[in-house]
Amino acid sequence: MAFKGGIILSLNAMNRILEVDEPNLQVFCEPGVVHAQLNAALKPRGILFPPDPGSTKMATVGGMASTNAAGMRAVKYGPTGAWVLGLDVVLPDGSLIETGSAGSRAKQSSAGLELTKLFVGAEGTLGIITRLRLKLMPIPPARAIVTALFDDLESAGRAVQETFAAGVSPSAIEILDERCIRAINRYRPGMDLPPVEAMLLFEVDGNPPGVRWDAEKVAGVVRPLAHKVEWSDEPQRIAALWEARSLVGAAIGALRPGSNRAYCGEDICVPVSRIPETLREIQEIGKRYRIPIATYGHIAGGNLHPGHLIDASNPDEIRRVLQVADEIHALALRMNGTITGEHGVGAVRSPYMRHEHGLALEAMRQIKEALDPKGIMNPAKLFPN
Amino acid sequence: MAFKGGIILSLNAMNRILEVDEPNLQVFCEPGVVHAQLNAALKPRGILFPPDPGSTKMATVGGMASTNAAGMRAVKYGPTGAWVLGLDVVLPDGSLIETGSAGSRAKQSSAGLELTKLFVGAEGTLGIITRLRLKLMPIPPARAIVTALFDDLESAGRAVQETFAAGVSPSAIEILDERCIRAINRYRPGMDLPPVEAMLLFEVDGNPPGVRWDAEKVAGVVRPLAHKVEWSDEPQRIAALWEARSLVGAAIGALRPGSNRAYCGEDICVPVSRIPETLREIQEIGKRYRIPIATYGHIAGGNLHPGHLIDASNPDEIRRVLQVADEIHALALRMNGTITGEHGVGAVRSPYMRHEHGLALEAMRQIKEALDPKGIMNPAKLFPN
Repeated sequence: MAFKGGIILSLNAMNRILEVDEPNLQVFCEPGVVHAQLNAALKPRGILFPPDPGSTKMATVGGMASTNAAGMRAVKYGPTGAWVLGLDVVLPDGSLIETGSAGSRAKQSSAGLELTKLFVGAEGTLGIITRLRLKLMPIPPARAIVTALFDDLESAGRAVQETFAAGVSPSAIEILDERCIRAINRYRPGMDLPPVEAMLLFEVDGNPPGVRWDAEKVAGVVRPLAHKVEWSDEPQRIAALWEARSLVGAAIGALRPGSNRAYCGEDICVPVSRIPETLREIQEIGKRYRIPIATYGHIAGGNLHPGHLIDASNPDEIRRVLQVADEIHALALRMNGTITGEHGVGAVRSPYMRHEHGLALEAMRQIKEALDPKGIMNPAKLFPN
Repeated sequence: MAFKGGIILSLNAMNRILEVDEPNLQVFCEPGVVHAQLNAALKPRGILFPPDPGSTKMATVGGMASTNAAGMRAVKYGPTGAWVLGLDVVLPDGSLIETGSAGSRAKQSSAGLELTKLFVGAEGTLGIITRLRLKLMPIPPARAIVTALFDDLESAGRAVQETFAAGVSPSAIEILDERCIRAINRYRPGMDLPPVEAMLLFEVDGNPPGVRWDAEKVAGVVRPLAHKVEWSDEPQRIAALWEARSLVGAAIGALRPGSNRAYCGEDICVPVSRIPETLREIQEIGKRYRIPIATYGHIAGGNLHPGHLIDASNPDEIRRVLQVADEIHALALRMNGTITGEHGVGAVRSPYMRHEHGLALEAMRQIKEALDPKGIMNPAKLFPN
């Protein structure tokens, strides 16, 4: 983060876990702590910080708070903001405040304006987070995964809705589209996934008998809609499935050797009921601009990550992929969704903010101007010109 | 709510459920909808709005949002704010905004400042909520309750910590102190509860085998610490236990016939680890000022509701109970807690805001002044003079 005086302060260097308050299920840490490191440190104590970004090995808790990152398990546990109890923040005027009640270790409070939740997701535009107080929970003792393959996207969408209608609250539901399935097959020849339109991974967590009940329930509900369904509560099988899911990001590159993935229009979120048509339209957009797109995402929350594969040395492809991103953002809003489900606005998505928020954008701007009248905090981000 | 023009608008009259969007697990409703009515309307569809205030028959969803009410199940499901996706708000300048992205039905977004969470808990000081978009979830198919009686408060506190350490995430843990137990015995002679220092009710929810597993686990962990433990997953028994819990508010009046309950210093929240000493100090304060206090609360979240019984026609008792409240608020802050866990600040608790928040109060004030420069929204509330 750059200051006017020319000093560069890397907050990622502030990466200490300061205190684990086990009796109160809280941890105090600096913003540069990496998500995977935090949970590795908590694991021997049987506790965890539930938000779970795909980028666990790189994502810092400060970054997760600043974008209000959601991740795979937000459908059950909520986004990062639900687990942030307090923040130390340096304000633009140089003062240091502690949100969430100064010195507090309480789990909740209704004392005044919720500054914690305001700084969460503000992308550094209101102040600099220097310490976080995070809420923790016991590690669920068991997990199971139901994998299901679908001949068409509509059946996959229906399977998600019918799972909830059956009274199950999964901890995650992930979707891989046809291109992602092909990519995994090419990247890992042993996998031999059939060439269907969509694959879903449902994760349920809890205690051992509860997890088996939920997994059988999901499998039973999904079976009439699916090409093939299976479930497992064996830790090795679960780890292998999540590994397959995690290598999608790398695998889709194999669909077009030498290509780069363009991160633009890569994080929309739409109502769950509109996922099948959204996925079809994304494919149409890709065809129209001759850019291959492989889409995966956290379908239970409606959060989709289209991966556009381009030749980054070709200026025409760069021009076309920016048009793809523009159309995908417009599509998200037309579907009653949002331009960003968890990655944040930054500079690139700020032109869409007025369309997404209407008059509410002016209220955001008033708050920004009140706290940062000189506009020194992460300037030219989040707000459109 | 009063306007300058002299028109009185009762928002409680805005009490329609506007639309249940079942596929997307959302409901749109007006602020005057009563909590119990909302969940009664959702029940036939198998879905619910999880925040659960004790005052379910009177609490409106608008009021719950404006105080960020927590209730019994906040320990597992979070406070009201975790379930509010968007708000229509009339701002002080007369403009109508929609927070949480205009027209959105997405379950999450990282597009800009989290205005929804800022208006939640603002107690009407920033604008008037005219519509809410709430997130819903499937009704858990099963529940069980473990009841445990403890000879001393310290063992009850340890039982809460050891439940979490055993990997169980209960949906509620309620505490009743000795006076509450006596009050229930007097109010309902059949109950015959033994005269111990504390009674805990642990609720677990999920599917039938999962709930039995959790209930047995809790009972096993708590047994070595308790005077007596039992558990049940029979719906009638569960309903009877929650009824006993719900009548505490009325029953404590029976401890001192003709008394009134004074609602001041009635909603502190402290770290879970400090509950036993907080409960002992509350008793000391009561003795010092000769005011009987019966305390119950949502112990898993640290939220305690001391009930002070006074003769409201006696000015000296009113003077003394205000001193009791003052000492209890100071106690909460000394215990690294908060003056209000879920009821909000209003006018009565505003003098403690500076002590609780320090410099962060100035940031709250800057936001208030930016959005409501003339101070017309719920004036003289929340902020100290």
